[in-house]
Amino acid sequence: MENPKLKAFIPFFYLVWSDDILTQKEFFTLQEFINFQNWISQKEKELLFSKINILDPPSREELTDWKYEIEKVIQLKPSIRSILGISIVLSKNDKIIKDQKPAFIKLENDLGILGEEAIGNFRETTNIFTSNYQSVNRFSTKKLTQILDGKQAAIIKKVKSVISRPEFAYETSTDTDVYREKVYDWCKILAKENFGNRAFPKKYGGRENIADYFAIMETLSYHDLSLVIKFGVQFGLWGMSIQSLGTEKHFSKYLKDIGTLKLPGCFAMTETHHGSNVKGLETTATYNHNDQTFTIHTPNENAQKEYIGNAAKHGQMATVFAKLIIEGNDYGINAFIVPLRDTNGKILKGITIGDCGLKMGLNGVDNGTIRFGNVVIPKDNMLDRFAWINEKGKFESPIPSDNRRFFTMLGTLVGGRIGIPRSALAAAKSGLTIAIIYSDQRRQFGPEGGSEVPILNYRMHQRRLIPLLAKTYAIHFALQYVTNRFIDRKESEMQEIEALAAGMKAYVTWSTRDILQECREACGGKGYLSENRIDTLKNDTEIYTTFEGDNTVLMQLVTKSRLSEFRKSFGEMSTMGIINYVYENAKTLISEKNPIVTRKTDDDHLLDNEFHLNAFEYREKATLASLAKRIKKLIDSGLEPYDAYNVVQHQMADVSQAYLERIILEQFLTAIKSIKDKKCKEVVSKLSQLYALSQIERNKGWYLEDGYMEAVKTKAIRKMVNQLCWEIRPDAVSLVKGFDIPESCLAAPIAL
Amino acid sequence: MENPKLKAFIPFFYLVWSDDILTQKEFFTLQEFINFQNWISQKEKELLFSKINILDPPSREELTDWKYEIEKVIQLKPSIRSILGISIVLSKNDKIIKDQKPAFIKLENDLGILGEEAIGNFRETTNIFTSNYQSVNRFSTKKLTQILDGKQAAIIKKVKSVISRPEFAYETSTDTDVYREKVYDWCKILAKENFGNRAFPKKYGGRENIADYFAIMETLSYHDLSLVIKFGVQFGLWGMSIQSLGTEKHFSKYLKDIGTLKLPGCFAMTETHHGSNVKGLETTATYNHNDQTFTIHTPNENAQKEYIGNAAKHGQMATVFAKLIIEGNDYGINAFIVPLRDTNGKILKGITIGDCGLKMGLNGVDNGTIRFGNVVIPKDNMLDRFAWINEKGKFESPIPSDNRRFFTMLGTLVGGRIGIPRSALAAAKSGLTIAIIYSDQRRQFGPEGGSEVPILNYRMHQRRLIPLLAKTYAIHFALQYVTNRFIDRKESEMQEIEALAAGMKAYVTWSTRDILQECREACGGKGYLSENRIDTLKNDTEIYTTFEGDNTVLMQLVTKSRLSEFRKSFGEMSTMGIINYVYENAKTLISEKNPIVTRKTDDDHLLDNEFHLNAFEYREKATLASLAKRIKKLIDSGLEPYDAYNVVQHQMADVSQAYLERIILEQFLTAIKSIKDKKCKEVVSKLSQLYALSQIERNKGWYLEDGYMEAVKTKAIRKMVNQLCWEIRPDAVSLVKGFDIPESCLAAPIAL
Repeated sequence: MENPKLKAFIPFFYLVWSDDILTQKEFFTLQEFINFQNWISQKEKELLFSKINILDPPSREELTDWKYEIEKVIQLKPSIRSILGISIVLSKNDKIIKDQKPAFIKLENDLGILGEEAIGNFRETTNIFTSNYQSVNRFSTKKLTQILDGKQAAIIKKVKSVISRPEFAYETSTDTDVYREKVYDWCKILAKENFGNRAFPKKYGGRENIADYFAIMETLSYHDLSLVIKFGVQFGLWGMSIQSLGTEKHFSKYLKDIGTLKLPGCFAMTETHHGSNVKGLETTATYNHNDQTFTIHTPNENAQKEYIGNAAKHGQMATVFAKLIIEGNDYGINAFIVPLRDTNGKILKGITIGDCGLKMGLNGVDNGTIRFGNVVIPKDNMLDRFAWINEKGKFESPIPSDNRRFFTMLGTLVGGRIGIPRSALAAAKSGLTIAIIYSDQRRQFGPEGGSEVPILNYRMHQRRLIPLLAKTYAIHFALQYVTNRFIDRKESEMQEIEALAAGMKAYVTWSTRDILQECREACGGKGYLSENRIDTLKNDTEIYTTFEGDNTVLMQLVTKSRLSEFRKSFGEMSTMGIINYVYENAKTLISEKNPIVTRKTDDDHLLDNEFHLNAFEYREKATLASLAKRIKKLIDSGLEPYDAYNVVQHQMADVSQAYLERIILEQFLTAIKSIKDKKCKEVVSKLSQLYALSQIERNKGWYLEDGYMEAVKTKAIRKMVNQLCWEIRPDAVSLVKGFDIPESCLAAPIAL
Repeated sequence: MENPKLKAFIPFFYLVWSDDILTQKEFFTLQEFINFQNWISQKEKELLFSKINILDPPSREELTDWKYEIEKVIQLKPSIRSILGISIVLSKNDKIIKDQKPAFIKLENDLGILGEEAIGNFRETTNIFTSNYQSVNRFSTKKLTQILDGKQAAIIKKVKSVISRPEFAYETSTDTDVYREKVYDWCKILAKENFGNRAFPKKYGGRENIADYFAIMETLSYHDLSLVIKFGVQFGLWGMSIQSLGTEKHFSKYLKDIGTLKLPGCFAMTETHHGSNVKGLETTATYNHNDQTFTIHTPNENAQKEYIGNAAKHGQMATVFAKLIIEGNDYGINAFIVPLRDTNGKILKGITIGDCGLKMGLNGVDNGTIRFGNVVIPKDNMLDRFAWINEKGKFESPIPSDNRRFFTMLGTLVGGRIGIPRSALAAAKSGLTIAIIYSDQRRQFGPEGGSEVPILNYRMHQRRLIPLLAKTYAIHFALQYVTNRFIDRKESEMQEIEALAAGMKAYVTWSTRDILQECREACGGKGYLSENRIDTLKNDTEIYTTFEGDNTVLMQLVTKSRLSEFRKSFGEMSTMGIINYVYENAKTLISEKNPIVTRKTDDDHLLDNEFHLNAFEYREKATLASLAKRIKKLIDSGLEPYDAYNVVQHQMADVSQAYLERIILEQFLTAIKSIKDKKCKEVVSKLSQLYALSQIERNKGWYLEDGYMEAVKTKAIRKMVNQLCWEIRPDAVSLVKGFDIPESCLAAPIAL
């Protein structure tokens, strides 16, 4: 092609032959274009056609020459931003080519090429900000750790030092027996450190420090989660059931040995046919006044105790929940201490133990089934804090209602619903630490000629991980709050605290499920290798959404409690009453649903915590009021209440979600207020904005349906979420380092 | 309480003492109420107060008596629907009580009691429809299976009969070596059945039947997924790489032995540092013209081949992807056959094999790493369908561009992106079968006095599983379509088919991830036990979202291809052009965004497939047009294209999602048209409505933002989704039975 003006076609020729998105069709487009140009002679057309004949491709060398010519042009004139620009230079500024500008631009479009993009393949660009972005150290991660650890810093440090010892190296055997024994041995070490009995009375070796106990559970969760659950079963469930449901005679007899792990035990509540609906338990404890004993019995196979931790191998006793029968009358569910094995581990007469076998995770915990065949225990083995049998063989209780008594008993065990989400939180922190450190180092793809880009620089990758990091920080502070509420509880607050703990258990364990899923995928193939530990974190915590109360059931219970509160506050649900309720905390009704506010999109407003909190509160109240109205309407229309509640189950899940998110945001903001270090406060505040906005974004359908926001605003929020992810990205590594997880616990080669 | 009118308080007394939601506060509410009643004497007030003294509770007997009195009233007058109604009867129709109606109703409200609900606790109701709902047999599951299996029914039946044999009993050992050998042995049995070489040329023992091959992959996936992947590596990746990238000399030398599993091999593409960005592979194949050989070499540790199936134990050869170097020049990525082990399994000189070790799942597959230390192979070992070295030692290829050639090579391997989602589909079907059968049998909670309710009757449980069942049916037919498109492909369609397969791979594997997650949780503790197999299904398929192309990356690629198509159709993106494009298939612009349509909520309209398809198409086009505009705007504003694409990554994910969902719905509806059995057609049509509406519901935020729908409509859609779940529930068990998964494969005790 000696004729310079024909050279104008070189970039197009190069592109149709080399671009992997252009197809055969594009050859015809190009042929047609050439054919149509009246400034090219027939002979020249033949020449041009010969270059785009699919049956006779150019040689690799010719293609390379074309590429070289194009690159030369771009080096000469780096400002060129269109294919036509190259064509003009190649044609030596031929006037005809310049005049054909509209035609050439149309050609680019018809080929589906974006000129600027295509040019990117020919030049080495250095000012790509996607490539240049990186981690920075803008604040002290040590100070951040202090803020997170708070008053429990000392015990957290101690636990970390213990689990970092060589004897806590992870077990790599896939043999369940080996793993179970290792976990048991670890538990003994922890017992020696007085970690297990931390919350027990001082009289029996404890420290009466429940705050420390929760911090221990959480910190241990940076290590093996089978260990945490085994530990929790022994000291939290078995030990605390004695402490909460028993009386002095039980304390003095058992607590010390439980605390030292001399007396391993179980918490035997769940039965095969009754997990969520524990009121329906069928195991019986029949009182025999003659010899002052109880007979514990499993009436049918489906009434066997199931999934009981410590049962398959190590447990010597169990707190067994059973229906108390006296003289043929049913006195509701009560708790009894039943020996399972002798001190040599031999299973006692009448006890049948099954092994739950391999599980998805937590295989270091020996879950089993227990069946009782008329097992006789002394009268003293009834845990008698809330009910007992008097000397005449009659039932006595300060709580006359069997139903209320059972829920009171369950209420004393609510600590488990705080320990579990705190353990889940730690697992999420581990996953995020691994995934974020890896994403900061792992490079894949990049602009032509430039180096590959850390995958954490990709917006999609940021979207996957950084809102979850924000959520994890939010949850951290919210769980601190729930823990404190539990520790400082008054009797009159118990119902609220129980609902709060149940809800947080569900919210946080689901959050961990989602976080670990995202971390696994974000680490690609490396995330699938066991050495990087995301698999174990994920599989071990998978059951957290089920045990200690199935999440879906818990969320319904939380909503029931919210509904009851709502009804108490509102009495007759008049329309105005509800409107006032919904807008109670807003300055005026107008200020919230005013078009100026529903459309407000300036950055200051979008980043304003007051806007966030208002939006969360509004959603909480509006969903609750709407649910209450709907249930009433359904029942008024003649539906049985049981059916009415079933119809609205989906809405009920929304109500508890909205309630919990309001609490979490509120407590996050409260905690931030007390942060003194300016730099830490700044970055954590950004996390609070991201948490708030990403939750609003998730619920944008609801806000739009309600009219609380208009489309301009939800779209602006989406952009702001992207923006915040981008802004937080350089701090992401420091933010996970702030969790301060021992390296030996993380252990993932990709996170070193 | 001899005075009858005082008896009016009995139900309130009973409730405050026994209800588990009422708290201390309610005692004060009740005291205050009593105090305020001027029709009660002071002495009577004292008496009443004595019944609600927290410090002196009534006896359990008294409570039981109250309950008995209330129950008697309700038995007598079953029509009673309020607490007051009971009070009136107990007071013997005392006029004062009747007159106090407003006060008593206020009291109920203040206590947070919903009268109708509270009464439910005293009566045995039989007409609770939540309890009475159950599975029915409304259609022939056999006919449904025929519809699903279609033309591949014979081979599907054959595969099922093979994997149901005793030798295919699941391996229960946790020892990886044992498991790997078992899987290898299974593969040998399958090879003997001529399953592996089904798509190979007849000349080399095959049947040239690719449709059968995919059906085999899918059906095998009802069994162990390690088996499927090992099978796929051997026959699909190793075998097909020879068949697709090699020429006759390779076919005759290798294909027969690959088909019989005499020659186990690997597909060695991925490297530690290059997984998604395979163009960046660093392994080199240097041509030596002197002795007509290639030297295969791993230049650094991060260029080792990683995650390679069959590498750690069994592979004797590998198709290795490496940069071809001739005389110091780089000719891009090409493929070479490299021996790894001799026939005794001894690793050859220059080859270093690593073991990926324990993985989250698929532990029956021996994934490993491979390093090449200047391994010399003969010239003939280059797979030379698309490029070769001529006798003069010069590179030759009909595809002059290295880039285009590499993507052409990858394009021939697109079958893997059909096999994987089909395998994922089968895993989802297994999970749903287990979870739905269990949910139909498992009972938990129920109305007072009634039997417990099958958990599948709970709306929330239906919401969790039934839309996913609908989605699974939708995907089934869509994957049939993709398979057929692939089998009948023309060269000119390849780009579209590649994008489609890539997108479906991502969409379906994510769908399986979500489905198995939901199934695990829906089965509670039972879902966590390995015996019920959801854990394995879940962990094995977990990596499906990563291998054969990371889903997130694939979705971006699909969108890039959509963008290119869009640009070709639209040239200059004028506003009117885009609007016309978006509304192309709609009758008129007005008919779509007309307020009557955006607010239309009648059942006929909501269930109309044309409405669904229009909504899906609209979303597909509108998101694509908006993305194209946004990218152009960003680039026009001076952003480098690489950065611009990064900014919109999140939007890009939406575009491919909308595109895929349109295809899936379209193909689902097309498939339904050809169903002849009326009853099957009816139930499957309902599934199509549920699939469509639940996707619209998921995207309601988008539809509202866009103005395509208004709040009244999205709310009506939510209700319709609930309604469809409820209507499909009695068919749910039959619908999963239609999948016809062999019982020995399901194997879950909870699904028997």
